[in-house]
Amino acid sequence: MSLSKLAYKGTRDFYPSDKQKLDYILNKFRGTSELFGYQEYDGPILESEELYKSKTSDEIVNNQTFLLIDRSNRRLVIRPEMTPTVSRMVAAKRYELAYPLRLYSIPNVWRYERQQTGRLREHWQLNVDLFGIEDNDAEHELINLINKIFVNFGAKSDQYQIRINSRKLMEYIFNVKYSFSPKQTSDLYHLIDQKNKIESSQFHKELNKITKDSVIDLNLQKIFDSTSLGQLPKDIQLSDGFRELKDLLDKLKIDNIVFDPTIVRGFNYYTGIVFEVYDTDPSNKRSILGGGRYDSLISEFGVKPLPVVGFGLGDLTMFNFLNNHHLMPELQPKTNLAIATIGLKLSDISGVVDYLREQQLNVSTNCLDIRLPNKIKWALKSNYQYLIIIGKEELNHQLYSFKNLKSNVELKLTIDQIINKIK
Amino acid sequence: MSLSKLAYKGTRDFYPSDKQKLDYILNKFRGTSELFGYQEYDGPILESEELYKSKTSDEIVNNQTFLLIDRSNRRLVIRPEMTPTVSRMVAAKRYELAYPLRLYSIPNVWRYERQQTGRLREHWQLNVDLFGIEDNDAEHELINLINKIFVNFGAKSDQYQIRINSRKLMEYIFNVKYSFSPKQTSDLYHLIDQKNKIESSQFHKELNKITKDSVIDLNLQKIFDSTSLGQLPKDIQLSDGFRELKDLLDKLKIDNIVFDPTIVRGFNYYTGIVFEVYDTDPSNKRSILGGGRYDSLISEFGVKPLPVVGFGLGDLTMFNFLNNHHLMPELQPKTNLAIATIGLKLSDISGVVDYLREQQLNVSTNCLDIRLPNKIKWALKSNYQYLIIIGKEELNHQLYSFKNLKSNVELKLTIDQIINKIK
Repeated sequence: MSLSKLAYKGTRDFYPSDKQKLDYILNKFRGTSELFGYQEYDGPILESEELYKSKTSDEIVNNQTFLLIDRSNRRLVIRPEMTPTVSRMVAAKRYELAYPLRLYSIPNVWRYERQQTGRLREHWQLNVDLFGIEDNDAEHELINLINKIFVNFGAKSDQYQIRINSRKLMEYIFNVKYSFSPKQTSDLYHLIDQKNKIESSQFHKELNKITKDSVIDLNLQKIFDSTSLGQLPKDIQLSDGFRELKDLLDKLKIDNIVFDPTIVRGFNYYTGIVFEVYDTDPSNKRSILGGGRYDSLISEFGVKPLPVVGFGLGDLTMFNFLNNHHLMPELQPKTNLAIATIGLKLSDISGVVDYLREQQLNVSTNCLDIRLPNKIKWALKSNYQYLIIIGKEELNHQLYSFKNLKSNVELKLTIDQIINKIK
Repeated sequence: MSLSKLAYKGTRDFYPSDKQKLDYILNKFRGTSELFGYQEYDGPILESEELYKSKTSDEIVNNQTFLLIDRSNRRLVIRPEMTPTVSRMVAAKRYELAYPLRLYSIPNVWRYERQQTGRLREHWQLNVDLFGIEDNDAEHELINLINKIFVNFGAKSDQYQIRINSRKLMEYIFNVKYSFSPKQTSDLYHLIDQKNKIESSQFHKELNKITKDSVIDLNLQKIFDSTSLGQLPKDIQLSDGFRELKDLLDKLKIDNIVFDPTIVRGFNYYTGIVFEVYDTDPSNKRSILGGGRYDSLISEFGVKPLPVVGFGLGDLTMFNFLNNHHLMPELQPKTNLAIATIGLKLSDISGVVDYLREQQLNVSTNCLDIRLPNKIKWALKSNYQYLIIIGKEELNHQLYSFKNLKSNVELKLTIDQIINKIK
């Protein structure tokens, strides 16, 4: 029986052209984060299971982790998200680090999800976190950064929408205005999170199961259907949560940001503003990015709390968005020059090869004992743009056949002429 | 009880300054591999356990893997090495890809090793593989590439040594010359691999246990003690393995490469030339890099075999080598410019900040409600070189305090003058 050639279900093999596309996306993530003064960190892909309990959503911890028990019986998990790791790392140096602290990372994160179109079990996720700013300057900066990422990919403001809400506002509505129990509040969050995925009739039914009061249902329904802050009842407009959110929206000079009361985020640790980014094309329904404020997570490590706002943005949802709007450019391979020999081995042409590499040119070679037409086929299949053909005579006269494989033009040139042609 | 702030045993947290050092190393790996025409690929960190059985060394598969059973009872392993993954990927496109095929990757690989100084459970490992070249042009290129990596780090040829041997040569000695059984051969490989780690007397004892012939022992001892090919017995010098190794050594224009019959490599899949790189400083004993030819691995996937030569080079062994020889440079943070405000929030200075970022300058800000001296402390602690101080007056006159935190010089400048100063 031979071994399987397939990657594990829900994971990806990145052949060079796939890896190049991935890098295009991750490098834009990187560059934009650095423009805003964020510095890259990283942590281990395995963490103790304990780190995720109660903080990440219960659904993820109980049903979606890759759990592993090591040879000393430690319970470990392949990270399903980066926030617990960065919180642990900042907690470990809580009193040494300088705040505001700007950190980003692009970890590979894993979830055991059922197979669906566009859903995988691993992705690369940009995580950007801003530590130490209590007021909404933090949200202001991060939403500007998010917008800049999309702009840097060439996206137009009508192609994506930033949807924003506030947990504090929702808690005012659920706890102060309606005095729901913690269980009711938690069920409501869960239901709202599902609102755009289920039928409206089912939503009403589920809502009534939670509130058991059809008058309240009508009022809530109005709130959940609001598309701007001004549509919210006047009493809610007096709450702190409302005021903070309104102030932030007034400051942001971004057209495509909207208040959306159905954005609540799945994670338990959010405490304030929460936001997601969506493709405006209705065929691409999944949120591209999500984040918010989580001010108390770091205190779970026994250190003084620290205000934090952060977000996560996956390579796959971004790739789908870019593809959908034809924003992925044609990428050129990093090596575009190859040498094919006629009757010569590597040691015969090492002078030429070394010289080209000294000029910082990436060079691939083919000195196999095969016919020249097959070497040309190899160069074409490998997607090189230029091919230098070297036989004994060329080597003696230091004059080489230089072929542009795209234009099919072939010239006899010296090595320096070739370098000039390429550069 | 609060959560632990420690990373899992044997793993590393990379804070920004650590991550920068890591990236310095990995980017040199990347740049040199690309100079030789290699293209980057990647695969999932989880692979089926089956992929490693019998191919990777038994010790690793049985005692050193991180094994995980997923929610559908699949047996998975966090990759302990990359060779099985790249073999699987090439096998999957065996008849589409063009050869010679040059691939590299820098995966994070994991082994459950007992804790020792300098040993971790994960590291980042450059993997370079050249597919499709049967003759020693492949080894020739890869050893040149390896040497170039060290040169590109600024290493001198007396600081490291490339040690080379041939499995084919050893098999000639063990199987043809001495007709040892497969069990004896395998035990001998294992013993040789230990030679430099155990006492000479113990080595003799173990050797005799395998051969049970003290005359043979004396001959073998002479072979294992050889430091050049010329010291080997004349009959061995007539073997194919000898001839190929000699031919390769003659071609390589590298001072610091030596024949070393004790280099046999731990993996079962090697079939020809094998090599390792060592620090010449005896305080740093562990091999920095290892590789060789493994021509039959890909056929395990039920496709036509393909000749391959490859090597692996870890970030940690490289870092130790560089540190040992003072080859790690001082690295500058990617953000060296910050803005501190006096009585202003982010929205007040967004014109200035946006303008600086449009000039591709990475900018960090501090608009907290704290006193200016504390903001200067923050900038110093964050290791920024330049600080722009902006209050209401500066904003009105568009003339800003620009402080060089290294030289402590402070000037009043326009924003364009500041940009010129920095660039």
